[in-house]
Amino acid sequence: MSSSQSKRVSIDHLESLVQAALLRAGMAPENVGPVAATIVACERDGVKSHGILRLPGFVHSLQLGWADGRSRPAITGQTASLVSIDAANGFAQVALDFARPRLLEMAEAAGVAVLLTKNSHHFAALWPDIEPFASRGLVALTCVNSKKRMAAWGGGRPVTGTNAIAFATPRPGHPPLVWDQSSSVLSQGDVLLAANEGRAVPAGIGCDAKGQPTTSPSEILDGGALLPFGGSKGASLAVMVEILAAALTGGRFGFEDQSPPGPATTSFGGQFLLLINPGRVQSGFDERVSALVAAILDAGASRLPGDRRYRQRQISAVDGIVLDAAAHALLLRLAGRSGGPVAGTGGELP
Amino acid sequence: MSSSQSKRVSIDHLESLVQAALLRAGMAPENVGPVAATIVACERDGVKSHGILRLPGFVHSLQLGWADGRSRPAITGQTASLVSIDAANGFAQVALDFARPRLLEMAEAAGVAVLLTKNSHHFAALWPDIEPFASRGLVALTCVNSKKRMAAWGGGRPVTGTNAIAFATPRPGHPPLVWDQSSSVLSQGDVLLAANEGRAVPAGIGCDAKGQPTTSPSEILDGGALLPFGGSKGASLAVMVEILAAALTGGRFGFEDQSPPGPATTSFGGQFLLLINPGRVQSGFDERVSALVAAILDAGASRLPGDRRYRQRQISAVDGIVLDAAAHALLLRLAGRSGGPVAGTGGELP
Repeated sequence: MSSSQSKRVSIDHLESLVQAALLRAGMAPENVGPVAATIVACERDGVKSHGILRLPGFVHSLQLGWADGRSRPAITGQTASLVSIDAANGFAQVALDFARPRLLEMAEAAGVAVLLTKNSHHFAALWPDIEPFASRGLVALTCVNSKKRMAAWGGGRPVTGTNAIAFATPRPGHPPLVWDQSSSVLSQGDVLLAANEGRAVPAGIGCDAKGQPTTSPSEILDGGALLPFGGSKGASLAVMVEILAAALTGGRFGFEDQSPPGPATTSFGGQFLLLINPGRVQSGFDERVSALVAAILDAGASRLPGDRRYRQRQISAVDGIVLDAAAHALLLRLAGRSGGPVAGTGGELP
Repeated sequence: MSSSQSKRVSIDHLESLVQAALLRAGMAPENVGPVAATIVACERDGVKSHGILRLPGFVHSLQLGWADGRSRPAITGQTASLVSIDAANGFAQVALDFARPRLLEMAEAAGVAVLLTKNSHHFAALWPDIEPFASRGLVALTCVNSKKRMAAWGGGRPVTGTNAIAFATPRPGHPPLVWDQSSSVLSQGDVLLAANEGRAVPAGIGCDAKGQPTTSPSEILDGGALLPFGGSKGASLAVMVEILAAALTGGRFGFEDQSPPGPATTSFGGQFLLLINPGRVQSGFDERVSALVAAILDAGASRLPGDRRYRQRQISAVDGIVLDAAAHALLLRLAGRSGGPVAGTGGELP
């Protein structure tokens, strides 16, 4: 199936292929939807680093039994505005989907909803978890901890994950304003890419196994550590994420990682999510957000987080999604398809 | 009263002098406590930048009528886990003190408590607002927005405040683990200091009035802008703070600042605070925090945020607080005292 040509597929067709790949790796049909949706959302919005490229990690983790694709999340505690979920070694997106109706009810009644998920795997972008809440009028903040890869507060050895935080707010007349960022200067993926291409990384990205600054990606990856953005300030955020997403949920810390060696596997930890319902607390919230965004643009901001994603999303809705030949072949192989109804570049959408 | 000698005062005596200064500037007796406590806590813990040095800003704001020292906060809304407060142009610390019993009740009953304060002045460090909650076993996150001084997302003109965020968690057998950091690389105070001393600031701190990078502190202060830490990542945090502490509360945005010209005045905006009660959601939380901190230290962290404060606090409890001659003279002048029972260096504590 490998070809030098890129392939164009419709969003629906891509979704069915990703679902087929996850089913084939052993996921239960009732769990497939939320995980496939997040991979497809990234590919659709041009976030290639978190699209099909991540699928082998999901599949590999399922095949090894590192992640459980058949377990169902269970509620372990609930109050007027908090729900604790045990993801039972499954994926965080499944737990979030399971908790969603309760979260929406709590946000409606109390104005606040908190989700604490433990024993969950997360290997995707975070913005797909919260954009839908902001589209429904809620302010959302979430974070997940991940495998230890980053030094903290002057240390030279990895102890926290690159622990991402994402935030979303409704924005009237526009899709939500959403940001999603790791606590490290550069992602592990970018350092891997530099290693593969034999390039040095800029100074300030990481340290070697002795805790000394290095621009060698292989020294960072081989026993070294990534560095937090903003020095101690980024480390503070990463440690906060370990507290919120692991200590409070009962999930595993980044430094307790026991993931199998070999190819990439999913990060096993926890997720924290906070929703606040502006409709319950502040009239005129929408207009205030509009005024803030106008002021930010007026002060010369070159773009808002998410702008590129939303632009690419519009293009994908009309033209479908372009996969390079390698990604397309990978997808078909994982989905167990020999080809199927996929048109070549410029052809009809299936 | 000016002298070349530093003066040593007891914590209690310092507190009574700060209270006297605030009363003299027009604050109502029932409002003085929480504001004085935060100034004294900083001076006691060696955070000189937010101690007596800030007192003239409080006094000046009160004298101008920019801040109202006599108004009382009022509840404008409440649910099972959220309370909205109108600080009525008073200080955020007074509003927080007023809301505290309700916040503690909500954290006990629902495991979650959110405070949304509007129309509040904040001119102090944030960690004194949350450390007491962590000392009572609660995880706490707070932020305040402040006057526009920082550019966002590639813009070259100021639009957000340097918007601080602080986080605290209980830590068994130790005082809480607390961090408190602004969203800018360097504080406005540090840039002012460099300007006064005729020093350049490092590159990456700020830009001039045309949005161009500069190392001249006066160009940054004179129509230029501070830059967020971590580039767009710090800007994302600062914008989140504007949403949480202003849009959600109904407070004023940083770019809507209308503070009077002249000497430093307090920042008028809002405050967001989130409490989570680990006792309500996760057994064994304390031990998990201990394990995390042990791992961070084991990975080579040189120190934890707050370490220096707690060390200085112990020293101050025994030896009192050392004020340099200028700070001491300032304090006596603002408090309307000609001297009073203050011992010289090495003398008896009053």
